Amino acid sequence: MTEAVTTAPAIILVTPQMGENIGAAARAMLNCGLVDLRLVAPRDGWPNIKAERAAVGAFEMMPPVKVFATTAEAVADLTHVYATTARDRRMVKPIVTARHAATEARIKITEGGKIGFMFGPERAGLLNDDLSLADTLLTVPLNPAFTSLNLGQAVLLVGYEWYQSGDTTPGSVLETNGSPPATKEQLINFFAHLERELDACGFLRNEEARPNMVRNLRNMWHRANLTEQEIRTLHGVVKELASLRQARKAAAESSD
Amino acid sequence: MTEAVTTAPAIILVTPQMGENIGAAARAMLNCGLVDLRLVAPRDGWPNIKAERAAVGAFEMMPPVKVFATTAEAVADLTHVYATTARDRRMVKPIVTARHAATEARIKITEGGKIGFMFGPERAGLLNDDLSLADTLLTVPLNPAFTSLNLGQAVLLVGYEWYQSGDTTPGSVLETNGSPPATKEQLINFFAHLERELDACGFLRNEEARPNMVRNLRNMWHRANLTEQEIRTLHGVVKELASLRQARKAAAESSD
Repeated sequence: MTEAVTTAPAIILVTPQMGENIGAAARAMLNCGLVDLRLVAPRDGWPNIKAERAAVGAFEMMPPVKVFATTAEAVADLTHVYATTARDRRMVKPIVTARHAATEARIKITEGGKIGFMFGPERAGLLNDDLSLADTLLTVPLNPAFTSLNLGQAVLLVGYEWYQSGDTTPGSVLETNGSPPATKEQLINFFAHLERELDACGFLRNEEARPNMVRNLRNMWHRANLTEQEIRTLHGVVKELASLRQARKAAAESSD
Repeated sequence: MTEAVTTAPAIILVTPQMGENIGAAARAMLNCGLVDLRLVAPRDGWPNIKAERAAVGAFEMMPPVKVFATTAEAVADLTHVYATTARDRRMVKPIVTARHAATEARIKITEGGKIGFMFGPERAGLLNDDLSLADTLLTVPLNPAFTSLNLGQAVLLVGYEWYQSGDTTPGSVLETNGSPPATKEQLINFFAHLERELDACGFLRNEEARPNMVRNLRNMWHRANLTEQEIRTLHGVVKELASLRQARKAAAESSD
C-alpha cells in the first residue's frame, strides 16, 4: 500500500466547478489507493467546504491538495498523461480504455514514469488545448445510449481499474468459515450412511433405477463442495429423519 | 444492446433508505445497460420524488421499477443471486470479485440462467437471512484502509464490470482523424528530405556520429506513428525552416 501510494498516479481536475464533485472525486480516489489530487483553477477557489463535506474524511487521509493556475503547470512533473474524454475530439492520438490505461500505467511506473489522469469540468469536459498536453485519450466503455457520468463516478471508474490492475484478490474462493473442506473419504462415508437409510425406508426400492438415482444424489452432494462440519450436520439430519420414520413406524405398529 | 437488456441481470436493492441513492443506482444501472431494478420494502415507499431527481432521466428509459415486500419474492424468478457484502459474514459460501461475477454471470445466462445482484441498505448492509437466499457473495476489491462506498457507487462498479465483460472496445487504438497511417515509403521519403537538409545546414557534419544520429532521429519518428497528413505537414515544416535558414544566409552574405 505505502509503496503503491508513493508511485501511484495523480488525478488532475481541470477547472472543476462544484465542490461536491471535488469531494466525491477525493473519496473515490482514496477508495482506490490514489492520494495525489491536483486542481487547475477550481471555480470556487480552495479550500472548499462543500468538497470537505462530500469527501467524508478522505482529505484527512491524503497529502494536501495541490492547486495550479494552468494545466501545463499541473502536469509539469509527470511523464505520461491520460486525458479522459467521452467524445471523439478530432485529434491524432491513441485512445485507450480505462482498463488498458491502468495496465499500461503500471508498466510505465516500473520504467520510472510518473502518471497522471486528467479530468475536465462538469458538462463541458476538457478543452482541446488541455488535450494537446496529454499523451493518450482515455474513454470508459459504457452504454452509448446513456453515458451521463458525474465527475466523482468518472474518477471512481478510472481509479477502480487502477486498483484492480494491482490487486491480487482471487477471483473466486469458497469461504468455509474455519471448517476444512470434506475429504472424499468423509463424503463417501456420508453417501454410504444416506444410501443405507434410503434402502431401509424403501426410497431406492426400484432395482433398475437404483444405480442412476444413487449417482444423481452423489453428484448433487459433490456440487455442494461440503465442509467437514457440514458432513457432520448432514449425518445428523439423516439420522434424525430415519429415527423419526422408525418412531412413526413403531407407533403405527403398536396402534394396530 | 436490445438482446443484452432482455437477458441482463436484475439489480435488487434490499430495504434502501434514501431516495437519492435509489436514483443514483438507477442512473448507474443505465450507464451499464441494466434496466431491471427491484426494490425490497423501500423505507420511504415508491414512487419517490428524490429518486426521480437523482436518476437524471434514467427511469424514463427503463421498465417500471418492481417493488416487493420480501427478499424471497424479489429473487423468486432468478436462478443465481450474487449478494454484495464488504464484510466476512461467517457463511460457507463462494466469495467472488465483481470481475469474476460478471464473467460467470454471462456464462450462466448463455446456459439459460437469470441473474440478480443484491445490495443491502446504506450502512448496515444485507442481513444474514438475505445472504442465505443468495448463491454467491460478491466483494469489490478496494483500498482496505478506506472502503466507504455509497449505494450508487457500489451498483456502478458491479454494473461496470457487467458491461465490460460484454464490451468489445479495443483496449488501445490510434485515432487518426480520417488520415491513414503513413506507409514506410512515405516515412522514408521524409527521412531523406530531413537528412538532406540537415546535411546542407551542417547539423550532421560529424561523419563519425552521423550514422547513429540519423538512426536516433528515425527512431523518434517511428515511435510517433505518423499519419499521411502529418508527413505532409512535416515536409512543410522542414522546407520552411530550411528556406528561413537560406534566406538568413543570403541576407547575411548581402550585408557583408
